[in-house]
Amino acid sequence: MDPVKVIEIKKSVFEDNDKDAALLRKDLKDKGVYLLNLMSSPGSGKTTTLIKTINLLRDKISIAVMEADIDSDVDAIKIKEATGIQSIQLHTGGMCHLDAEMTRQGLDNVDLKGIDLVVLENVGNLVCPAEFDTGACRNAMILSVPEGHDKPLKYPLMFSVCDLVIVNKIDVLPYFDFDLEKCTEYVHMRNPMAQVIPICAKTGEGVEKVAEWLLTEVKNWKNK
Amino acid sequence: MDPVKVIEIKKSVFEDNDKDAALLRKDLKDKGVYLLNLMSSPGSGKTTTLIKTINLLRDKISIAVMEADIDSDVDAIKIKEATGIQSIQLHTGGMCHLDAEMTRQGLDNVDLKGIDLVVLENVGNLVCPAEFDTGACRNAMILSVPEGHDKPLKYPLMFSVCDLVIVNKIDVLPYFDFDLEKCTEYVHMRNPMAQVIPICAKTGEGVEKVAEWLLTEVKNWKNK
Repeated sequence: MDPVKVIEIKKSVFEDNDKDAALLRKDLKDKGVYLLNLMSSPGSGKTTTLIKTINLLRDKISIAVMEADIDSDVDAIKIKEATGIQSIQLHTGGMCHLDAEMTRQGLDNVDLKGIDLVVLENVGNLVCPAEFDTGACRNAMILSVPEGHDKPLKYPLMFSVCDLVIVNKIDVLPYFDFDLEKCTEYVHMRNPMAQVIPICAKTGEGVEKVAEWLLTEVKNWKNK
Repeated sequence: MDPVKVIEIKKSVFEDNDKDAALLRKDLKDKGVYLLNLMSSPGSGKTTTLIKTINLLRDKISIAVMEADIDSDVDAIKIKEATGIQSIQLHTGGMCHLDAEMTRQGLDNVDLKGIDLVVLENVGNLVCPAEFDTGACRNAMILSVPEGHDKPLKYPLMFSVCDLVIVNKIDVLPYFDFDLEKCTEYVHMRNPMAQVIPICAKTGEGVEKVAEWLLTEVKNWKNK
């Protein structure tokens, strides 16, 4: 296996992130590429969820992944080993989020020929990534059961900007005080349109619903 | 019960955070107050760990808590209800961390008379809070089992700046692929001096070791 590409992302020099993000989205539209920005706390299961979702979708659409991390390459290698798809690592150089220009730097290193979907796995953080439009078509986030159902109360912006909230690790629901109904209610307080999908990435339970959501999104983007 | 005090923290106007932090530490030393900066991911169990630790120490030393959060007051209320001690809420106004000046704004609202220990519960985030010296005497962090033992590889700075790493939720070790030995090894890669204490805040298992560590720290600070 070839080693994964590791890109050292430079801090953006442009100030108008919203403009950069809109431009990037337009470019993606022209190229027919759908970009998903996937966010979460550290350790919520982004990479495992991605692997399971990719394996359900790989025969239907062509996917590439950009793994953003402060320092390590473990996620990009894990994705590549488990799925064989194009997977690159973005090093943020200590920064806690990606903006649109940084996302573009990453995309410049992805071979987009024939690619329908690029997933950006953002830095594990419920605060800063929510503040920067990456230029992605949609934002999704993963909240894992051990983190608690009160997180939409404590990290309002993250839940406001996400159209999909994946509730992961439902296999351990019996061992935690996590109320799925309350969680959904709190999510909808922040974003009434958000879809909540409970899954267990480890066993694969519910992941087909995430794959379905993503497939519909990609098709709509191409036809819009 | 009186409502908890809620402080809207203003963004610091001073640039030299390291200088501010050193000054704050000196002031704390003069007052005989030990300040602990407690950090972690969202949902790792900071508040529950604090409650259990406070209840073990309350007869030995006098404690106050500052709960930093982006928006909600749930943690300060929870601490006050569970322990009765002085507990104030700091709102960071969307900001992802506290620096020394912001910490000082919080401390200005704590009645420090007779207080031996103030715990600052920082914003749930493994990235940004690690970059700013709050002026605390020590940094501690909680890593919970569901987050995975690889976190010191992925969030190097956080583990470099912490002298105590509390591994929480060890009651669910059987349900997660978490290797405590590897975790300790990775922690020591970042900070060979760091102490690792495995606990279960929910049941109280191991919390007495955290309380002992803290008691020794407070006594040393006063006698130094």
